[in-house]
Amino acid sequence: MPLVRIDLADSRPADLRRAIADGVHDALVAVVGIPAGDRFQLLTAHPAGELVFDADYLGVRRMDVVYVQITLVAGRPRPLKVELFRRIAANLAAVGVRPEDVHVTLTENTVEDWSVGNGEAQLLALGPVAGTAG
Amino acid sequence: MPLVRIDLADSRPADLRRAIADGVHDALVAVVGIPAGDRFQLLTAHPAGELVFDADYLGVRRMDVVYVQITLVAGRPRPLKVELFRRIAANLAAVGVRPEDVHVTLTENTVEDWSVGNGEAQLLALGPVAGTAG
Amino acid sequence: MPLVRIDLADSRPADLRRAIADGVHDALVAVVGIPAGDRFQLLTAHPAGELVFDADYLGVRRMDVVYVQITLVAGRPRPLKVELFRRIAANLAAVGVRPEDVHVTLTENTVEDWSVGNGEAQLLALGPVAGTAG
Repeated sequence: MPLVRIDLADSRPADLRRAIADGVHDALVAVVGIPAGDRFQLLTAHPAGELVFDADYLGVRRMDVVYVQITLVAGRPRPLKVELFRRIAANLAAVGVRPEDVHVTLTENTVEDWSVGNGEAQLLALGPVAGTAG
Repeated sequence: MPLVRIDLADSRPADLRRAIADGVHDALVAVVGIPAGDRFQLLTAHPAGELVFDADYLGVRRMDVVYVQITLVAGRPRPLKVELFRRIAANLAAVGVRPEDVHVTLTENTVEDWSVGNGEAQLLALGPVAGTAG
Repeated sequence: MPLVRIDLADSRPADLRRAIADGVHDALVAVVGIPAGDRFQLLTAHPAGELVFDADYLGVRRMDVVYVQITLVAGRPRPLKVELFRRIAANLAAVGVRPEDVHVTLTENTVEDWSVGNGEAQLLALGPVAGTAG
């Protein structure tokens, strides 16, 4: 049920793009505990100039940022989010993305805000959401 | 005032893309009760490989997902959201999109989070938002 | 820390796109008080037909909408948001964008929802967020 938007430079080759998408998903499965099948991702490859970022804000030396914006159901505790950030950066480092270049943002909604097909609101009947106390 | 992002495969022809956008908007008008003129939509057509999804998560057989992400003012009750999902899928089925392939996510904000032009925050003066008890 | 998505027509030339991005950022710095280095922006240039909007909803005569969607930490008071909308439209007018064509949406999250690199959740240690009472 997370929806993951990944925006990156079109100079990154297609197989790397896929490895990045895999790395983000694997982190969500490992840290948040979502099912492996709960994968919904949108990649957008941008030409030079469309991705703007500061080269050293907060002392992080950025060269080629990968933006990861994750929409997910609210309720994951702070330590889990902190670990999710760490794991995403680690997984992306394993495929060759500098950790400095990994930018992650979370936006939360609720179980009634999702339809993963067939016009149904599947999360209303699913029970507790992975990674929450519920 | 909803802002609607629609991400779909670039293999879907331009007239179908427009019909999909129409179908989503018509559902918002019919179910949520927004004015017909309250239409703000962003389509992005993605090359193969940029839209990632599981082929049968929760038993839904997906082949070519259309992602619909709607940002809207909070306050719409759950039954209205459930009906909105149903109607979007029905409208898109009417133009040839498999219901299994319709993925919808809602993200909420407030009336003070919108400017629909001229640098003004129009919703602050509009009165109750369609579809809410307010 | 705001994440800024700007979606506009690909008929707008590259130097104007950059000027628009600058104008949005300058408004955030001037009105919200974020550091100049806190700049993270995603531009997407859309071909004709991908940006859909009503030509006069709420009496605003739109011709070529620039969509600005800003994700930011919650807590900015309403008057600051109102001034932000005003300033963005003014800055964009200064580079040739009709104020009627400037559409802005805000979506809020929290300090635990950001990693600006290195897999760290930097905002947890930063202290009060600019523009909030905190």
